[in-house]
Amino acid sequence: MKEVMAVVRMNMMNQTKRALADAGISSVTARDCLGRGKGLVDLHLLEGAEKGYEEAVSQLGQSSRLIPKRAMLLVLPDKLVDKTIKTIIKVNQTGKSGDGMIWVMPCVDAVRVRTGESGDAALDDI
Amino acid sequence: MKEVMAVVRMNMMNQTKRALADAGISSVTARDCLGRGKGLVDLHLLEGAEKGYEEAVSQLGQSSRLIPKRAMLLVLPDKLVDKTIKTIIKVNQTGKSGDGMIWVMPCVDAVRVRTGESGDAALDDI
Amino acid sequence: MKEVMAVVRMNMMNQTKRALADAGISSVTARDCLGRGKGLVDLHLLEGAEKGYEEAVSQLGQSSRLIPKRAMLLVLPDKLVDKTIKTIIKVNQTGKSGDGMIWVMPCVDAVRVRTGESGDAALDDI
Repeated sequence: MKEVMAVVRMNMMNQTKRALADAGISSVTARDCLGRGKGLVDLHLLEGAEKGYEEAVSQLGQSSRLIPKRAMLLVLPDKLVDKTIKTIIKVNQTGKSGDGMIWVMPCVDAVRVRTGESGDAALDDI
Repeated sequence: MKEVMAVVRMNMMNQTKRALADAGISSVTARDCLGRGKGLVDLHLLEGAEKGYEEAVSQLGQSSRLIPKRAMLLVLPDKLVDKTIKTIIKVNQTGKSGDGMIWVMPCVDAVRVRTGESGDAALDDI
Repeated sequence: MKEVMAVVRMNMMNQTKRALADAGISSVTARDCLGRGKGLVDLHLLEGAEKGYEEAVSQLGQSSRLIPKRAMLLVLPDKLVDKTIKTIIKVNQTGKSGDGMIWVMPCVDAVRVRTGESGDAALDDI
């Protein structure tokens, strides 16, 4: 079982989710917006700065490139990890800086609260 | 040491935290809202759509069910993981779809910045 | 390869990023705001409460200490983990409660979407 986290351009989230669904991976957890990279900051900073939060403004001042991003989180059986990564790359690869990153983390267990099922059984509708 | 992440209904966060505190697990990190499941999107999308962000609107259009959720993050000694999972299930299990998911990830180390303590010692007020 | 997550005071984010950059670690993913600790809640709750969301208001009612925080996420080669932790502690340690926490999680793989590179090669501009 693995946790796959992907950070992609905000406007690619929709297409990525559709491509994953077409590949049989329909349960995507969409996480909050964030920026990644050297000096990037996230959408909340922008919002915070608009509202006049001092620490948000000061952080924005540090950065010349402000790129809101979206993070997707998927917990998958091992056998689906490769397909998932390939699908995300296929949809998001433009060859330009900012295409995104994918991280794969080990996951020891998953539990579905509704049924109490754990292990791969808890992932079987993915 | 394990990282336990639980995604539950927004209005269950309070009760869940209280039940965990009653079980002796009081240090909960409340993460941002998110949606989970087939085609679900998160609260930020809703907010983004209200503000007219195109990518937020287009993603909302994809989905018929928009369910904001909350994620809880706990880093715990191994011995507390089972109790934590059982407590979260007990509070959140209605038997209906959307009760939530719990994931257990390995955690190599924890460091308390204030004291520099690491390992289980950094978790001893949990 | 490790995932290092650090939760620090909101107004320390800027300095922390600068110190990490000075130490040669410039690719920081700034995550959303959150609160950590016994009964703490996050900035989204505060915003939600301002907007009148009932569940946000009810959760705020539970807590006497509301401390928005920021989470940093770094995925690093093993050899950079120690330096990263030391740098974060050095900048954030005041000795007062609320200095923050650092967690180290294993990471199996990293993939740069632009190039398809994986493993440590995907981290080589960090």
